[in-house]
Amino acid sequence: MYQSKLFYKTLKNAPKNAEALSHILLTRAGFIDQLSAGVYSFLPLGLLVLEKIEKIIREEMIKIRGQEILMPVLTPKENWEKTGRWGSFKELFKLKGTNEKEYALNPTHEEIISPLAKKIVISYKNLPLYLFQIQTKFRNELRVKSGLLRTKEFLMKDLYSFHSSQDDLDKYYEVVSGAYDKIFKRCGLKTFKTLASGGSFSRYSHELQSETAAGEDIIFICQKCKIVFNKELGLKRCPKCNGSVFEKKKVVEVGNIFKLGTKYSSPFGLKFKDKDDKEKPVIMGCYGIGLGRLMAAIVEVNNDKKGIIWPKEVSPFDIHLIQIENTKEVKRAAEKLYKRLTQKETQKEPSSFRKELGSFSSDVLYDDREDVSPGEKFAEADLIGIPIRIVISEKTLKNNYLEVKKRNKDKICLIRFSHIFQIM
Amino acid sequence: MYQSKLFYKTLKNAPKNAEALSHILLTRAGFIDQLSAGVYSFLPLGLLVLEKIEKIIREEMIKIRGQEILMPVLTPKENWEKTGRWGSFKELFKLKGTNEKEYALNPTHEEIISPLAKKIVISYKNLPLYLFQIQTKFRNELRVKSGLLRTKEFLMKDLYSFHSSQDDLDKYYEVVSGAYDKIFKRCGLKTFKTLASGGSFSRYSHELQSETAAGEDIIFICQKCKIVFNKELGLKRCPKCNGSVFEKKKVVEVGNIFKLGTKYSSPFGLKFKDKDDKEKPVIMGCYGIGLGRLMAAIVEVNNDKKGIIWPKEVSPFDIHLIQIENTKEVKRAAEKLYKRLTQKETQKEPSSFRKELGSFSSDVLYDDREDVSPGEKFAEADLIGIPIRIVISEKTLKNNYLEVKKRNKDKICLIRFSHIFQIM
Repeated sequence: MYQSKLFYKTLKNAPKNAEALSHILLTRAGFIDQLSAGVYSFLPLGLLVLEKIEKIIREEMIKIRGQEILMPVLTPKENWEKTGRWGSFKELFKLKGTNEKEYALNPTHEEIISPLAKKIVISYKNLPLYLFQIQTKFRNELRVKSGLLRTKEFLMKDLYSFHSSQDDLDKYYEVVSGAYDKIFKRCGLKTFKTLASGGSFSRYSHELQSETAAGEDIIFICQKCKIVFNKELGLKRCPKCNGSVFEKKKVVEVGNIFKLGTKYSSPFGLKFKDKDDKEKPVIMGCYGIGLGRLMAAIVEVNNDKKGIIWPKEVSPFDIHLIQIENTKEVKRAAEKLYKRLTQKETQKEPSSFRKELGSFSSDVLYDDREDVSPGEKFAEADLIGIPIRIVISEKTLKNNYLEVKKRNKDKICLIRFSHIFQIM
Repeated sequence: MYQSKLFYKTLKNAPKNAEALSHILLTRAGFIDQLSAGVYSFLPLGLLVLEKIEKIIREEMIKIRGQEILMPVLTPKENWEKTGRWGSFKELFKLKGTNEKEYALNPTHEEIISPLAKKIVISYKNLPLYLFQIQTKFRNELRVKSGLLRTKEFLMKDLYSFHSSQDDLDKYYEVVSGAYDKIFKRCGLKTFKTLASGGSFSRYSHELQSETAAGEDIIFICQKCKIVFNKELGLKRCPKCNGSVFEKKKVVEVGNIFKLGTKYSSPFGLKFKDKDDKEKPVIMGCYGIGLGRLMAAIVEVNNDKKGIIWPKEVSPFDIHLIQIENTKEVKRAAEKLYKRLTQKETQKEPSSFRKELGSFSSDVLYDDREDVSPGEKFAEADLIGIPIRIVISEKTLKNNYLEVKKRNKDKICLIRFSHIFQIM
């Protein structure tokens, strides 16, 4: 992508009332734009990151045999009345359509997926069943001031599992927990699997918490057995080893896994015929990840005072190619290298270059602008945070060497410049 | 995908009140499920088709230099008041959030993209600019009875173009028109570029119409010069050649392209500084395609009395592999072939097989069910409509030949069965 054409604008100052670092950096670097309190547009840079996160999540969901579906935003009031949440779910957005028909804008989909599963699940042979979607959700939040960490409209991955026994749910719960570990690791996040309140069905559920100063939650880590629990549980002793010395951390929840039991299958009569020919209620689990929130959490953790430092797998581009000094020679060389980097992989590339930069069919942001000073270009590149950088200047051409650097300025390798063009 | 695990169920009967053939077939074949009038879930088969359509559209949008963004569903009342559409847009869903703040659920995004573009577009150097999204839209429709052809919630691709001159808009308008031709062709649809009313800015806009008995629109084709116009225009003579003999067709609109001029830039003060240093209003175009509606239109056109016949590029799977007779040998052979078909492409496959079936890393739906009769399997396969079919039976094994057939039963090729396994 030619940076001169990219729809973005970096800002010198933080947006008004922004507190969370991720909110400030994502706005200043041109990834997101606030339309209204808690409502954001994703600009091209932001959407590229969101799509990479989506890809990681989808891959890991398919690995644990999730089948993807897409449920709607609009749900009739009747579905929410069946579970009693039309009245009790405080943050439910409600609206009226034609003929005074009432709808909720879904903040979660138990009320839709249970009656849907009922149409297809008949016997134990249809179980277990794992359905997920990546879809837009809504919450009528009172407090929204942390950018993408808490919004009124957000993209969410929600997985629902359906089982014939508690034992089967327990096993899959651990499988999902493992998939979540992989997702967060690929996103460059260290997470704490945290005991949280279990609601009406089980004693505890689990939250995946990532440490950050902007976090709204507080966790305690037992210094003896390393178990982690949410402050909201109010425990004075470790529930596992009875220890009483804890480390305290500010965190943000990036995912949750929840044993629902029959809480949402019973109201809809979601049953199955078991091997013993008896009808039994289906046992359910649900597992969520907010994509925008995850994106914000990644930024909360991966940054320095100059800007964002994207982990490789979620960076909007793989390489930031920056041309400084606009002589004919520099422009020609930069343009050639850009074409070379973005062309399909060939067998001919120099192996050291290939090894360091990964695949040659790379996404490259090419700063081809001629009316911007080198200082401004570098400051913007630091703010945007693409992890690998190549600068082409008069000096590069003279020395005949390309420096490939990490965003934090560590040199990765030197490549003989002429070598690249000989093989083109 | 093992069909025994797939989340779907075919239905013998049409859904209640269904009139459109696409509504009947997509429901009966287990692609979609109605939650409420005009509100649908996409089951795995349906989502696979939707994703293929999305991929085609995205590819063609990127080819014409579209940059993808993602704008929100919720928009503050103020934006809609600026253009006067808060009051005049009949199908606008409206709701209230906290502090009585009023929102619309967006049916289109001019009211959001114009102020967004204003934040970044300053001079002629920022133009032209092409922004698109693939995003969920809402319309509070009174009449919804044609399945995916008219819904209250729908996925839409909307592209907006921004220009410094009318001439530049006119040129890009033709570029988009060409991209639309490619999209519909890849989706297996023949479309008519139809003159329609132009609204307040230009005399005509264009609709892309696809012929179908369930169509809500009527077009006239001039028998002399072949120009096509919408019946709503009420013309008695051809606007091009003045001819008066027309062919009449029932059609459904699958896309539209529209010259907006300054209708939505002016209310938001979206201007640019031109080369002559004067401030001028930005000239806009907008271009929409409804993905669900397109999916329905594809089905309206591609079917026979037994079910759907998906065009290759939008089929949920490339190949339907059907095992009949459940002997050990048949099961073993079918399983082996399934693994072979879905494994990554190698250099070793027999060339005739590869040539006929395309890439070897194929998506295959494998009907591995043992408690379903061959007759039921074939009837379901006809209903679901995957374009290429391979059946494995005792006879196949005995004859040592695999028949590769099209959905309409034309034989494509015969492949020596043992040959496939020798190379595994």
